[in-house]
Amino acid sequence: PVLHYKKCFLTCKYKYYNRGWCRYVSKAATKTQMEFDYDGPSMKTSVPGPRSQELTKQLGDIQNVGAVNFFCNYEESRGNYLVDVDGNRMLDLYTQISSIPIGYNHPALLKLMTNPHNLSTFVNRPALGILPPENFPDKISESLLSVAPSGMSRVQTMACGSCSNENAFKSMFIWYRNKERGQTAPSDQDLSTCMVNQAPGCPDLSILSFMGSFHGRTMGCLATTHSKVIHKLDIPSFDWPIAPFPRLQYPLEEFTRENAQEESRCLEEVEDLIVKWRQKGKPVAGIVVEPIQAEGGDNHASPDFFRSLRNIARKHGSAFHVDEVQTGGGTTGKFWAHEHWGMDDPADIVSFSKKLLTGGYFQRDELQPDKGQYPNILSRARGQGTFCAVDICDDETRNSIMLKARDKGVILGGCGDRSIRFRPALVFKEYHVHIFLNIFSDVLAQLK
Amino acid sequence: PVLHYKKCFLTCKYKYYNRGWCRYVSKAATKTQMEFDYDGPSMKTSVPGPRSQELTKQLGDIQNVGAVNFFCNYEESRGNYLVDVDGNRMLDLYTQISSIPIGYNHPALLKLMTNPHNLSTFVNRPALGILPPENFPDKISESLLSVAPSGMSRVQTMACGSCSNENAFKSMFIWYRNKERGQTAPSDQDLSTCMVNQAPGCPDLSILSFMGSFHGRTMGCLATTHSKVIHKLDIPSFDWPIAPFPRLQYPLEEFTRENAQEESRCLEEVEDLIVKWRQKGKPVAGIVVEPIQAEGGDNHASPDFFRSLRNIARKHGSAFHVDEVQTGGGTTGKFWAHEHWGMDDPADIVSFSKKLLTGGYFQRDELQPDKGQYPNILSRARGQGTFCAVDICDDETRNSIMLKARDKGVILGGCGDRSIRFRPALVFKEYHVHIFLNIFSDVLAQLK
Repeated sequence: PVLHYKKCFLTCKYKYYNRGWCRYVSKAATKTQMEFDYDGPSMKTSVPGPRSQELTKQLGDIQNVGAVNFFCNYEESRGNYLVDVDGNRMLDLYTQISSIPIGYNHPALLKLMTNPHNLSTFVNRPALGILPPENFPDKISESLLSVAPSGMSRVQTMACGSCSNENAFKSMFIWYRNKERGQTAPSDQDLSTCMVNQAPGCPDLSILSFMGSFHGRTMGCLATTHSKVIHKLDIPSFDWPIAPFPRLQYPLEEFTRENAQEESRCLEEVEDLIVKWRQKGKPVAGIVVEPIQAEGGDNHASPDFFRSLRNIARKHGSAFHVDEVQTGGGTTGKFWAHEHWGMDDPADIVSFSKKLLTGGYFQRDELQPDKGQYPNILSRARGQGTFCAVDICDDETRNSIMLKARDKGVILGGCGDRSIRFRPALVFKEYHVHIFLNIFSDVLAQLK
Repeated sequence: PVLHYKKCFLTCKYKYYNRGWCRYVSKAATKTQMEFDYDGPSMKTSVPGPRSQELTKQLGDIQNVGAVNFFCNYEESRGNYLVDVDGNRMLDLYTQISSIPIGYNHPALLKLMTNPHNLSTFVNRPALGILPPENFPDKISESLLSVAPSGMSRVQTMACGSCSNENAFKSMFIWYRNKERGQTAPSDQDLSTCMVNQAPGCPDLSILSFMGSFHGRTMGCLATTHSKVIHKLDIPSFDWPIAPFPRLQYPLEEFTRENAQEESRCLEEVEDLIVKWRQKGKPVAGIVVEPIQAEGGDNHASPDFFRSLRNIARKHGSAFHVDEVQTGGGTTGKFWAHEHWGMDDPADIVSFSKKLLTGGYFQRDELQPDKGQYPNILSRARGQGTFCAVDICDDETRNSIMLKARDKGVILGGCGDRSIRFRPALVFKEYHVHIFLNIFSDVLAQLK
């Protein structure tokens, strides 16, 4: 608790306010900032100013603008200062909901983005799961793996925080079911029922979350989010257990006993819920928690609380997922907030996004999904424009055709259980069709 | 049906194969391609070549590589040709699962990406919902709205196809519940139950989808995806209705009657399911369908089928969502595949991603969610590092403080029902703290 107290850049000032002492006036700021930062705020209008109001009205015809604060001039924004379209320059302590790691338009980031190798990624949109670029393993090793949480050497990148959590949940479900099945393969019943959303293929498993938590707004994440009505209302959800998160009293050193009791109460409730949901036939495959609940009100808990929670997960065979989307990347004084717990084995999964500038999740080896991939000659030729397909007699032949075509320099895609699909770019000319058909004919001829 | 048949760039060639005529050999390709395209495939090794195999092994230590085909040299790829790390150059008819609109490294896209105004978006990661950049309304008007589907003037951007569909579903649920409630506000029971995942706040509504469909792999989308076992197995899901998608026989002109019967059968099943799920207490808030089922096997249906389906949705008060993530952007010979249906009012929601190079969805005005936003002076000061927060006596005061601070040039964020959170960048120096505290003190002083 003392650790929390001492490390906060605000606490020492706020003590005065809490006790009604005196109004604090700091010394003038020393100017040692990197040259691209501004000297201080500079306000020309109230905010939103007239230009922001005009643009809000304009955007209102296209989208819901209920949440828009004002419009920004990102090109003029620098370092700690956000500039708006009315020329107001503001010191930014909110940084796009905590997503700007080292300030606006940092020269190092601009340099990275203009590097042709990085530009290429944005222009060519590689499908990383099937066709990664050459530097992908090295890039991941040098960046994400260099800050991997303790005990984790595997990382999966994702496009945003919600997708990261959704896929982390899916890893936990798959891991849990593999454990239940032992070394046996999924049954025919598993395979047939999963296609129609029914158990046992789509099992009635649950994720335990905490009241006040925010893990994203896609439907899986949303079932574990409990921060604001506006996020949840009217959206169908899952019957998953929700535990209370400790509500600490401050200053911490004056409420040591009360806070310890509060944390114990919450941990007991977690265990009760795990047992109760197992009895309901909806076992808890994983527990998801933020090291500091952010959207829910910046609610903290002690390292002891998290250590105990991690042990409860282990004891009940649930995976332990630490959501560091908002806390990761240095903002709590450590690279990961869970480092404050001082554990060698803090989690099974750690998800991230925001300040990391990419989404994704780290996981322990055991949580790596282990499933493989499932695949007369031509029939049912069909298509519209360049969006075409043809069926092959069987999947073995289909795969053989695709491999042989590739060895001859043509990339094709499969779909369905025995179709080949064609998705050329819109600059695919008639003579590309001929190049393709020549090669495809050769491949088919070889099959006879 | 004839229209389908005629417009496919493959059909005329494949007729020969279907009937066992002769092996087609095209004339040599005329060379009129833009100068950056290559002349033809050029194969140096079988694929994956030695370098790809080496890299796959390396990546295998970090991620599941079960789906990796080979590694690419995106910098050397051009136009219709994908180059791999072993120097093989292949004609690409699959284009990153249909995501490359005008070929690799198109000069126009490279130019766009090096424009400083666009670079700024990637470096500064604007939270578009609250702090959009100045050119945002114009950009949307000039790009997405210029290709808006018939009857739609509103568009919401998203980062990927799954997020687009998830949020489209949420729009349909909110729209449906608003309809049910009439003009009355959500009840206290709605508000309290939604926070714990229970009805009526989280209502038992459903989305009707089709067997063979693919709408994404986050948990909401996954409940409407029924293409492959590998996507679904072991993931909990919703009990939502699944209708058969027509299985047409080819060539279409020889099976006119059979195919019409098949489509009627599927449409009848759709209506039966809507009625059945309403009786089960899980009304169908929306129907989601691909104009051509892609992942599921490139399954087509006639314009008549889709027109009838749209009318069934209207008749039963369900929203009609056309998922054009894979079909949108010109690939079917029209900008949107649903244009082939020839309707003025083809859908309530149309989602997109891939070739559009951004995700999102268009919607009719009625589907715009209409909800607004919900929020002694200081207490509970707390934090770790730069990740700090403090509680304000009540939400009105909190909001007033934040607005006054902003007018003086400081941006703060709220969280919880009465907290202010601080999320400065990691280059926030001590003197920024002072600038902040000076202004904050002034604001607090004014409140006395």
